[in-house]
Amino acid sequence: MPEYASLSRTELEELHQKLLARYAGYQAQRLKLDMSRGKPGADQLDLSLGMLTCLDGREACMAEDGTDCRNYGVLAGIPEAKRLFAGMLGVAPDEIIIGGNSSLNMMYDMMARAMTHGVPGSPTPWCRLPKVRFLCPCPGYDRHFAICEHFGIDMIDIDMTPDGPDMAAVKRLAESDDSIKGIWCVPQYSNPQGYTYSDATVDAFAALKPAALDFRIFWDDAYCVHHLDSHPDHLKNILTACRQTGRENMIYIFGSTSKITFPGAGVAMLAASRANVAAILRDMAAQTIGSDKLNQLRHVRFFQNMAGIEAHMKRHAALIKPKFDKVTELFARNFAGTGIASWTTPHGGYFISFDGPDGCARRTVELCRAAGVKVTPAGATFPYHRDPRDRNIRIAPTMPPVDELATAIELFCLCVKIAAVEKRLAA
Amino acid sequence: MPEYASLSRTELEELHQKLLARYAGYQAQRLKLDMSRGKPGADQLDLSLGMLTCLDGREACMAEDGTDCRNYGVLAGIPEAKRLFAGMLGVAPDEIIIGGNSSLNMMYDMMARAMTHGVPGSPTPWCRLPKVRFLCPCPGYDRHFAICEHFGIDMIDIDMTPDGPDMAAVKRLAESDDSIKGIWCVPQYSNPQGYTYSDATVDAFAALKPAALDFRIFWDDAYCVHHLDSHPDHLKNILTACRQTGRENMIYIFGSTSKITFPGAGVAMLAASRANVAAILRDMAAQTIGSDKLNQLRHVRFFQNMAGIEAHMKRHAALIKPKFDKVTELFARNFAGTGIASWTTPHGGYFISFDGPDGCARRTVELCRAAGVKVTPAGATFPYHRDPRDRNIRIAPTMPPVDELATAIELFCLCVKIAAVEKRLAA
Repeated sequence: MPEYASLSRTELEELHQKLLARYAGYQAQRLKLDMSRGKPGADQLDLSLGMLTCLDGREACMAEDGTDCRNYGVLAGIPEAKRLFAGMLGVAPDEIIIGGNSSLNMMYDMMARAMTHGVPGSPTPWCRLPKVRFLCPCPGYDRHFAICEHFGIDMIDIDMTPDGPDMAAVKRLAESDDSIKGIWCVPQYSNPQGYTYSDATVDAFAALKPAALDFRIFWDDAYCVHHLDSHPDHLKNILTACRQTGRENMIYIFGSTSKITFPGAGVAMLAASRANVAAILRDMAAQTIGSDKLNQLRHVRFFQNMAGIEAHMKRHAALIKPKFDKVTELFARNFAGTGIASWTTPHGGYFISFDGPDGCARRTVELCRAAGVKVTPAGATFPYHRDPRDRNIRIAPTMPPVDELATAIELFCLCVKIAAVEKRLAA
Repeated sequence: MPEYASLSRTELEELHQKLLARYAGYQAQRLKLDMSRGKPGADQLDLSLGMLTCLDGREACMAEDGTDCRNYGVLAGIPEAKRLFAGMLGVAPDEIIIGGNSSLNMMYDMMARAMTHGVPGSPTPWCRLPKVRFLCPCPGYDRHFAICEHFGIDMIDIDMTPDGPDMAAVKRLAESDDSIKGIWCVPQYSNPQGYTYSDATVDAFAALKPAALDFRIFWDDAYCVHHLDSHPDHLKNILTACRQTGRENMIYIFGSTSKITFPGAGVAMLAASRANVAAILRDMAAQTIGSDKLNQLRHVRFFQNMAGIEAHMKRHAALIKPKFDKVTELFARNFAGTGIASWTTPHGGYFISFDGPDGCARRTVELCRAAGVKVTPAGATFPYHRDPRDRNIRIAPTMPPVDELATAIELFCLCVKIAAVEKRLAA
């Protein structure tokens, strides 16, 4: 295919007509496809059906310490669940709290507590401060940014690189401005790029000396076991690294089984230093008597141990790797030589990050929508939905069956091209 | 038995020796009994074992509207769960939000949102105000008071009567002081008395014209179907009453299945006016993608309808009514004629409220503890753990088997008597 930049106006106009004719063909199909969220497909959910019935009868409901998991109590989680998921996040069992079905909820609650009460080291609750700022590596996860927006926390864009956030910028900002209270991170298979932070990035975080005494890294390790192929990325242990620099209270690690078992009925978790865990449990004692222990027990019985989780994740990969491959194959075929697009090819996680020409993302998404394909809104991967170059779109390939995905991606590529041609024609 | 007030010093000393001898007998038994919390007994939890396995296979996980309950989504709850529990709370299905496993958590979250964002009608978030006050009918539920304490909300004692809170005091305070932002209520089978608010009390709430435009009644309808006998109390519908006075936004109703199915793995709910529900869902959208829909579906499949819940509650009553009867029988036998004790005899709920002589509750609890019987701490039923007369103790009879309960209550009565005699001797 010719490079778009080299096309004459006449060639662009011809191309535009051809693309519009193909687009009309898609419109006639009246598609109704959804690639907007990182939802597992039904076949993936079937992998965990055994969990539904693995607790049967009174005896099955007893935790290893004799706790009747049907009844009240056990704020931090049952011992066997703490052990299993501490292993998954690379922390000790007394450095983890098992929550309800949503790690997002645990992040929100953490931020809410910081607002009303502060965190260990806070001179004052954050809601009493004239200004609270957060660093937001972007493109990033829209729901992280929504939490900041909800609490009126100002967000500062930080560029993402294949090694993680631009740590020079993080250091410069965090170490000079004590209104900057934290940073959002998806350190492994980042949302949406699928990048994994390098050891140097993790070490730079551990070495950070923030101006705010109560600076916190919200380390959303959502995809810690979500490898797609036999070359998984390796993420250096942040809690260990921070312990070595004497800054272990700087980190809150979040995880969940939402994309391991059931997104709607998984188990969420928060890992942190023992001092942080103690402070959180003190606050949580006013909030709840305890999370759903039966669901914790279901997870433990279903997986038994980390090897069980790893084997399970291989079965997920077998189902979704072909979808990732299909997307990158179609991107390569459609955009080879055009010079109008780039994308990531992650070894894990749930997303592919796509960059089209500057100023074309909103138009691309609108064209997709008008032809019946829903994709993540343009701008969603940036704070305040403001993509400064209007070029990034998050691709979520897991939910549709592979043939529907192929149709949706073909249309998506077509829409990118139309938007790109329109942009050049308007220039 | 003689009235304690009529005993001479010598008689009191004699009695004291006799009581202490009996007490030594209990101490020798090295009891280890717990009556401290309102936890169902294991036999009650067995009633819901069918719920553990009632979802089996992919098809079973589909809600009536086709939602795959295993996956993400549906913030307010699945339609069939909203319908079932709306019926239980006497509201419409679009006036309810189904939450996670804890109504306490929903109350805490409601208060947290009011602190950081306010509620519809708030001129300003509560955390920005110099002072926020809450009315606390007491004796009441310690975990309600703990939420206020956690957020630094000043609590004002309101006397409880068998008809509900002292509404003259509620009216006088709420209508004159706009720093008073709300009130805690357990309107049916109140914790700890087992009182149900009279129609006049409900009407007085509905007619309230609080000085604060964002005054909220936290109506914890925890025991709405928890009848003990065939003479259930009837609670007038507060949302309907408030709608009639044009003040339907004043009410947040909370409920749960914690004491219907599993305390650790039930379903919680919040009912309110449509305007309140819309505002809450807007805030909740930043907090979570949705609660555990599989557990909602389990509840619906297990109960089918309100008749299913009612039949189930009769089976609970059959197990716990004998325990309530045992307590009141032993109280009557032990305290007849002594003039040192009074207690409630509820038709539902989970507690009996016990009043001993003034200044004796702490000592009674301490004597129980030293003989191996744990009861709810004295003062727990009052804000800041301050029982102004140090006389109220909450009795939670459901958890221990009936023979252990009888032993615990016999010891409890003995401890009350010892404390009463000590008090008189010290006078």
